Amino acid sequence: MKKFVNDPKQFVPEMLKGIALANPDTLKYVPEYNLIMRTDAPNDDKVSIIQGSGSGHEPAHVMAVGRGMLDAACPGDVFAAPPSDYVYETTKLLASKKGVLHIINNYTGDRMAFDMGRELAEAEDITIATILVDDDVAVKDSLYTVGRRGVAGNFFVIKAVGAASEEGASLEDLVALGNRVNSVTRTMGMALTSCTPPAKGSPLFELGDDEMEMGVGIHGEPGRRREKLASANDIVDELLDACVTDLPYSSGDEVALMINGLGGTPISELYILYGRAAEQLASQGIKVTRSYVGEYCTSLDMAGASVSLVKLDDELNRLFDAPAEVAVRIF
Amino acid sequence: MKKFVNDPKQFVPEMLKGIALANPDTLKYVPEYNLIMRTDAPNDDKVSIIQGSGSGHEPAHVMAVGRGMLDAACPGDVFAAPPSDYVYETTKLLASKKGVLHIINNYTGDRMAFDMGRELAEAEDITIATILVDDDVAVKDSLYTVGRRGVAGNFFVIKAVGAASEEGASLEDLVALGNRVNSVTRTMGMALTSCTPPAKGSPLFELGDDEMEMGVGIHGEPGRRREKLASANDIVDELLDACVTDLPYSSGDEVALMINGLGGTPISELYILYGRAAEQLASQGIKVTRSYVGEYCTSLDMAGASVSLVKLDDELNRLFDAPAEVAVRIF
Repeated sequence: MKKFVNDPKQFVPEMLKGIALANPDTLKYVPEYNLIMRTDAPNDDKVSIIQGSGSGHEPAHVMAVGRGMLDAACPGDVFAAPPSDYVYETTKLLASKKGVLHIINNYTGDRMAFDMGRELAEAEDITIATILVDDDVAVKDSLYTVGRRGVAGNFFVIKAVGAASEEGASLEDLVALGNRVNSVTRTMGMALTSCTPPAKGSPLFELGDDEMEMGVGIHGEPGRRREKLASANDIVDELLDACVTDLPYSSGDEVALMINGLGGTPISELYILYGRAAEQLASQGIKVTRSYVGEYCTSLDMAGASVSLVKLDDELNRLFDAPAEVAVRIF
Repeated sequence: MKKFVNDPKQFVPEMLKGIALANPDTLKYVPEYNLIMRTDAPNDDKVSIIQGSGSGHEPAHVMAVGRGMLDAACPGDVFAAPPSDYVYETTKLLASKKGVLHIINNYTGDRMAFDMGRELAEAEDITIATILVDDDVAVKDSLYTVGRRGVAGNFFVIKAVGAASEEGASLEDLVALGNRVNSVTRTMGMALTSCTPPAKGSPLFELGDDEMEMGVGIHGEPGRRREKLASANDIVDELLDACVTDLPYSSGDEVALMINGLGGTPISELYILYGRAAEQLASQGIKVTRSYVGEYCTSLDMAGASVSLVKLDDELNRLFDAPAEVAVRIF
């Protein structure tokens, strides 16, 4: 296993400690609950926004905590839902008079943990609402999920509700907004390689040297099909078409385009995908006015990428323009 | 080869086209010279700053073009110096009354290309000065370089002179500033895996499943030694110690700490390295006040990382705080 790791059991705690050490003014690490939170949260003048999921998807979600984004993230171990008592304790710590918003990617384990955590916290008179993100068009009702999966499009939900919460939006309004963003967001991804969970020490699944997995899940779940490796253009055309035809996005639409790397793919390759996708959309009269190229929601060291589209309007443009202060930056 | 690629010969042009398409308001791609430049450059009120190097190190340097950073970057093909006529044409296009600054990482090929390009441009009465970056402590006067190599620490040189040039600093002052930043910056990196250049289609060098290369160069050049894989803590301790003892940095110093990923390493692992490095520096009384964790100067899809330190002072803090508008962002 070619990884920077000490004790695989300490992989997540050591990462969280590093994130907090690198952002001492803005982020706090609470080891008891695997929790990264803003140092200035909770704030009774704003709804607290929490996301929990498995680890191994970084920057999602522990590096999306900060002003204008999440107030806290309580990840589980690599590719494992957070324990429900972590969800409960995180919700208690972040309790605000305006309420607490749980954002959950649509996986059975995450939903169960958040349902139980919510029930415990509501018994203590904390007001909680939930948004389910299910932007992945690849598969529906697979062995691994009920309904569609939540993947990189989740970042647009976080960005919009994070910005609106800073403006003082109510819990009810945030739920409506988040659901609206989710409803205009579509994503599909694919894998060139498997990934290696630190505790397993070997690839999660086998993929031949000349094969790729179209529609792969961010935990290595099977996608639509396995096929022979194709060119960058053919791959991005298929990912894009799956998104465009699903909503559908159509001529005259203004969209955000995200090319998300899955962890092991260099950004040079992501821009090759971006260039093709932007040209293909332009040829269909779909106008890309916001571009996001980089790593948002990864699968450890998997080589691969996903394409996301969001249909924009004046409100979303305003919210996406608002400041977001997160841990990840280059300068 | 598990890569997003169409024609390997078009790898760099397709990437550059993608970068420009994603940043239509701020960046322009000039295909004739493999050039990415600011749309608002040149500007006779500021020195134009140009960096050229091989491609395959992205974000360096084509994604470091923008206000407060580079005015243009003219990369060569993957791991190949830019042709000298590209340097010449780029310099002509960016010519400013205040002069043109060439920032060159210290490799024989890059130096030759820039020397020749400079000579041609000076014959046309363009005033040019040069900064050589050589922050890599790993090796000196190897088969591949004369003197030390320039690697990720280069970003601090770009950031400082980029900010100062926006304030109207003279060419002479920028040279002094850039040399000063380089003189207080030290870097060492290591590889867990090789990388695969698109045109080669196979790994650049062989590294056993249980081996790592300490002090590797960003083009896969040999480092100090090849040895058995070690823990994350042992690896970062060695990289850090090589930097700390070289300047040396000592108790009471205030520093910037960069953990740079080499392309194939997920950011989760980089934060594990960061946490250990920050603690080790604290135990030596060296205070980390600026943190940079992510990908800055990569080697295609190589798994690995480098550690950089910069000794800070009031002037550098002010320049590092200044705005920098580059292509890479998450939100």
